[in-house]
Amino acid sequence: MDLIASLQCADQPGIVHAMTSAVLACGGNIIENQQFTDPATNTFVMRTRFETSQGQATAEKSLSDGLAKYHPALHIRPTSQRPRALVMVTKESHCLRDLLYLNELGELKVEIPLVISNHEDLRQLVESHGVEFMYLSGDKTTQEAEITKQIDLLKIDFVVLARYMQILSADFCDRMPGKIINIHHSFLPGFKGAKPYHQAHERGVKIIGASAHFVTSELDEGPIIEQDVAHVTHIATPEELIAIGRDIERRVLAKAVKLYSEDKIFVVGKRTVVFA
Amino acid sequence: MDLIASLQCADQPGIVHAMTSAVLACGGNIIENQQFTDPATNTFVMRTRFETSQGQATAEKSLSDGLAKYHPALHIRPTSQRPRALVMVTKESHCLRDLLYLNELGELKVEIPLVISNHEDLRQLVESHGVEFMYLSGDKTTQEAEITKQIDLLKIDFVVLARYMQILSADFCDRMPGKIINIHHSFLPGFKGAKPYHQAHERGVKIIGASAHFVTSELDEGPIIEQDVAHVTHIATPEELIAIGRDIERRVLAKAVKLYSEDKIFVVGKRTVVFA
Amino acid sequence: MDLIASLQCADQPGIVHAMTSAVLACGGNIIENQQFTDPATNTFVMRTRFETSQGQATAEKSLSDGLAKYHPALHIRPTSQRPRALVMVTKESHCLRDLLYLNELGELKVEIPLVISNHEDLRQLVESHGVEFMYLSGDKTTQEAEITKQIDLLKIDFVVLARYMQILSADFCDRMPGKIINIHHSFLPGFKGAKPYHQAHERGVKIIGASAHFVTSELDEGPIIEQDVAHVTHIATPEELIAIGRDIERRVLAKAVKLYSEDKIFVVGKRTVVFA
Amino acid sequence: MDLIASLQCADQPGIVHAMTSAVLACGGNIIENQQFTDPATNTFVMRTRFETSQGQATAEKSLSDGLAKYHPALHIRPTSQRPRALVMVTKESHCLRDLLYLNELGELKVEIPLVISNHEDLRQLVESHGVEFMYLSGDKTTQEAEITKQIDLLKIDFVVLARYMQILSADFCDRMPGKIINIHHSFLPGFKGAKPYHQAHERGVKIIGASAHFVTSELDEGPIIEQDVAHVTHIATPEELIAIGRDIERRVLAKAVKLYSEDKIFVVGKRTVVFA
Repeated sequence: MDLIASLQCADQPGIVHAMTSAVLACGGNIIENQQFTDPATNTFVMRTRFETSQGQATAEKSLSDGLAKYHPALHIRPTSQRPRALVMVTKESHCLRDLLYLNELGELKVEIPLVISNHEDLRQLVESHGVEFMYLSGDKTTQEAEITKQIDLLKIDFVVLARYMQILSADFCDRMPGKIINIHHSFLPGFKGAKPYHQAHERGVKIIGASAHFVTSELDEGPIIEQDVAHVTHIATPEELIAIGRDIERRVLAKAVKLYSEDKIFVVGKRTVVFA
Repeated sequence: MDLIASLQCADQPGIVHAMTSAVLACGGNIIENQQFTDPATNTFVMRTRFETSQGQATAEKSLSDGLAKYHPALHIRPTSQRPRALVMVTKESHCLRDLLYLNELGELKVEIPLVISNHEDLRQLVESHGVEFMYLSGDKTTQEAEITKQIDLLKIDFVVLARYMQILSADFCDRMPGKIINIHHSFLPGFKGAKPYHQAHERGVKIIGASAHFVTSELDEGPIIEQDVAHVTHIATPEELIAIGRDIERRVLAKAVKLYSEDKIFVVGKRTVVFA
Repeated sequence: MDLIASLQCADQPGIVHAMTSAVLACGGNIIENQQFTDPATNTFVMRTRFETSQGQATAEKSLSDGLAKYHPALHIRPTSQRPRALVMVTKESHCLRDLLYLNELGELKVEIPLVISNHEDLRQLVESHGVEFMYLSGDKTTQEAEITKQIDLLKIDFVVLARYMQILSADFCDRMPGKIINIHHSFLPGFKGAKPYHQAHERGVKIIGASAHFVTSELDEGPIIEQDVAHVTHIATPEELIAIGRDIERRVLAKAVKLYSEDKIFVVGKRTVVFA
Repeated sequence: MDLIASLQCADQPGIVHAMTSAVLACGGNIIENQQFTDPATNTFVMRTRFETSQGQATAEKSLSDGLAKYHPALHIRPTSQRPRALVMVTKESHCLRDLLYLNELGELKVEIPLVISNHEDLRQLVESHGVEFMYLSGDKTTQEAEITKQIDLLKIDFVVLARYMQILSADFCDRMPGKIINIHHSFLPGFKGAKPYHQAHERGVKIIGASAHFVTSELDEGPIIEQDVAHVTHIATPEELIAIGRDIERRVLAKAVKLYSEDKIFVVGKRTVVFA
């Protein structure tokens, strides 16, 4: 059985040793091991993939006993178990299409039991992939109550805002810290206000980008997970910049979802530790 | 004789045709030809490299006569003639080193008759490359008077601020529009205030970058010439981010200087047209 | 009306001038213009996109008259007219999926009236996108006769071998020079023989790549259109290298098809001129 | 004291645990830890950077005792101790210049006590950087005897062939396995014979590259350390391809030297494990 253990706690001498002892104790053989200590917050995070013939329950007991004195946040799951994503969309399809496509191709390994939208536009696309589509109207409180209900009912692990153009309430965000992934455009320099791609065009930027980040209630923008950019030239019109932006957005969001699905993202303070 | 003609004017039907006629008329054969019409400002720019055995003066007459009715800004020079750069520095050497190094290697083709600094720190480095070094102190007016004098005396074509940490006066900038190149760091998202790399670290950005741009008196930041970025991870400390930033800064500035030295940059409105 | 003119002929003084004259003569306004002279073969190629209100027939007459003395290969078409591709596949779906997906997304602008395969495996995928699928069996001569028939019947402009694992006859290739695009893996260093990804793994290569090229009867590998690579590390197993290779293959093939669909590829001698 | 421990042995359960125990036993705190098990050869490699106040000798004893039963190749050194490189060159300066430049900039941390050449051309460049230059003539045996003498005398850790255009004897190579780094161009597809850049131009390749590798006596080309490529277009002449190739060569070699200087390269079978 192939398992992934994720561990986060205050840094102290001996944690790695305790972890490797606990893996040995349940007959485990370490296949991958990545760790990082954040100096600013003194936080230790570790991701260990190991094989054992003794099963998940035995491994869980061995690790939680062996690491108990460090009071870690510890999570163990079979590598083959696909995290379950609720995808939320509005009208634009590019990010959603990429998630469905890469999932079918096998390059992304998540379950997508449901897509929720505040518009009907993408129903056909979603259903043609054999995925359930739910349209929500009404006020935000009603909509979020239904979303929360579906999350419980479908045992959703995380939420992907794939160009969902409606702001979630602080309450909703606070209930799922580090579990809601959003995507938006990014520029150097940044542009405030409407029509950012038109502003970027007017200023003649040579690079446009996108950022995937976790959603939080407090910040404009939560911990950044992944960013990428494309070089552009004076030739591109604002509409072409938007098209290039779409391409970056879908790649960056797909990458963030892939990293999440492999338990490779840890939130430490205001930033993420991401194991490549 | 190998010549580069640069042309900028209001867009009108027939310009390309007039240009190719004028090149033909002086026995010229076009080797490279790049053009662009900016829809927002209706500006036409063109860069044509051609060979002719009839010499620069004949070519200049042929082109200025042939294009007269378009009232273009027209510039012709031998391809082999190296533009003359005044480089200005403070204490940090990385951008300066790269310019000197690439110039010696022959990958950059400029003359650097003088380096001016408001500190003495880099004198030895500059002089060891056989380049004259001038230290300027005193108030800004006195310093800029001396800089202007040197620009005239040494027939300087353009100024490169290679981490020159002093703000030039609006007057000085206005006298050399599109002829002063600066470099600075850029982030997604942008950070205001002191210690931007520390802020970037705290927010866990995954990309840091740099922009080379022309200096103007009116804007915080003039027309962007070139930008590039590097991917970074949680592992990098603020100091390491600064080191990575240095590496991007020197590459981006060197690229901008190279483009300038090949007459490949045109300022159109608030942005640049750059022929690759 | 927005038109693309593609031109290829022996280089002679005055061609650009004749071209711009001919565009002017039919009331045309040049929007994009790219040209290249290949010194080795003295071949001139040019791609000009222009607008005219006088229609395609008038433009064709103006350009063929105006350029007649250069005996060019000249092709004019409306920019909005999508080239028609016959896609051929075997069992692997990744390249085919990307073509269908990008075409639906609007990032690729081709018509795909038919997919032909020597296996039944991909029928469902193709038909679920509303595209006709044809399975061919029998000997190569019979199959190629049917393919040729379909090419005529469906007015196919070019053929895309999207991981078609059967060698086309020299006869077939010779009938469509510069019109059959193939994709295959590429390594540094190259590997001969079976299981190239396993060889690459054993030698610990740090880069794997793919090349899209035109198919010819004479060469192992015809003129290269587009290449790309990915950095890999020791961690990747041979199977993971194959997966990474799939990802490069589909991107490179899609890029080549996009370039072809925009009339941006010219075959000159054994190589291609590709306008970015 | 900041130490780097490098470890290589046959993979067995418990090694990571033994390593972390041994680090703990000498009061060490792990700062970085990277490991890999090569399935093909069942080889385990590990690089651990740790801090201890008990000194290098104590750490060495603790680790060699604690790991004795695994019979590892174990190497411990202070992080601040710069490996000593003998650089060998012929006439081309680009790779040498980059090594000297990056070392002065502090981005590379090696000692270069001597540059040896079979030509006098680069003497002045080397000496202007304050580095000793030695010209060797005579037959290969005599030259290699002198090189070996200098390696012993100057306590050289590794040899960098920075465009050294003379083949070293099998004997010489065999005495320094995994300690001689070479750089050469690489193409997709590969080209045999003379003037590879001219062949690459004729075939219209869209990518050119370079590989840094360890030199061995048996293979044409030993274990690859680092590779990189650049995209090129039809515009580049063979001479421009050579210039682009030079740029890649110097970057790739500098990267390989940097990785070596940080103890991040392990030779496992015919390939390298490189920790990023």
